[in-house]
Amino acid sequence: MEFKPIGIIRTPFKRKEDAPIQPSRSSACGEVEVFKKYEEGLEDIEGFSHIILIYQFHKSEGYSLKVKPYLDDNLRGLFATRAPRRPNQIGLSVVKLLKRKKNILFIESIDVLEGTPLLDIKPYVPDFYPKENVTIGWLEGKIR
Amino acid sequence: MEFKPIGIIRTPFKRKEDAPIQPSRSSACGEVEVFKKYEEGLEDIEGFSHIILIYQFHKSEGYSLKVKPYLDDNLRGLFATRAPRRPNQIGLSVVKLLKRKKNILFIESIDVLEGTPLLDIKPYVPDFYPKENVTIGWLEGKIR
Repeated sequence: MEFKPIGIIRTPFKRKEDAPIQPSRSSACGEVEVFKKYEEGLEDIEGFSHIILIYQFHKSEGYSLKVKPYLDDNLRGLFATRAPRRPNQIGLSVVKLLKRKKNILFIESIDVLEGTPLLDIKPYVPDFYPKENVTIGWLEGKIR
Repeated sequence: MEFKPIGIIRTPFKRKEDAPIQPSRSSACGEVEVFKKYEEGLEDIEGFSHIILIYQFHKSEGYSLKVKPYLDDNLRGLFATRAPRRPNQIGLSVVKLLKRKKNILFIESIDVLEGTPLLDIKPYVPDFYPKENVTIGWLEGKIR
C-alpha cells in the first residue's frame, strides 16, 4: 500500500545522535507543517493539549528482528522495542500541542529528526490508554 | 512510500456496523497473526501486558477533512478525530496481550474489522503517555 506525507516535522535534531530516545525525555520544541491542502482538517485540534504524530523513520533503512535497545544490554525482539529499523518504518510520538497558526502546529517534547515526513495526526485521549495493571517486560526498572 | 502488511488481525467484526468505536469500549477477543518471517521479532513481547497495533483501515476509501464523529453532532476537523477516512488510512489501537503462541498473539479489547492488515506492533509503555494536565477538546464530557 502506498502512503504519502501530509506534512513535515521541524525539529532541532539534525542527526540521529542528537535526538532524544523518547518524547517524554525531551523538552525540545518543534513545528509541524501540515501541507496547505490539509489545513481544514486541523480545525478543533487546539482543544487537545496533546496529539499523536505518526511519521516515517525516513533516515532508517532495512530492519533487524533482534535489536539491542539503548536502555538494555540484551538483544530483544524488534516488536518489543521502538527501534526505528522496522519492516514498516512507522514511528509514533505523543507531543504537547502549544498552539496552532493556520497550517502550522507548535509542539513541545518532540524526539524526531528534522524533516521527518508526517503521515497522520490523531488526538490524544488519555482514557484510551491504560495506566493500571500494566506490565512493561524488559523495560521494567529501566525507566522508572 | 510503500508499506506492506506484516500480518493480519482476526476479530469477530465482519462489518463496519459491528465494530466498537474504541478499543477501550470493547471486550472482544481476537488474534494477531504475524507472518512467519517476522516471528523472531515477537520475542520478549510477552512481558508487556498491552501492545500498540498499527494497521491499515483497509475498508476505508478516500478522505474528508471535516467529519461528524460518532460521539458528536458537529462537524470536526479530521485530525481532531479518529475517523478512518484519512489521507493515509493508518489506525492505532492499544490492546491487551493475553498470550503468544509462536507467531500468533491472543489479544483482548480489539475494535478493528476482521482481516485488517497489520503494519507494526510497538510495546505500550504508560510512562510515555501523559495522564495529568491533559485537555481533550470537543470530546470533553462525552467519554467520561
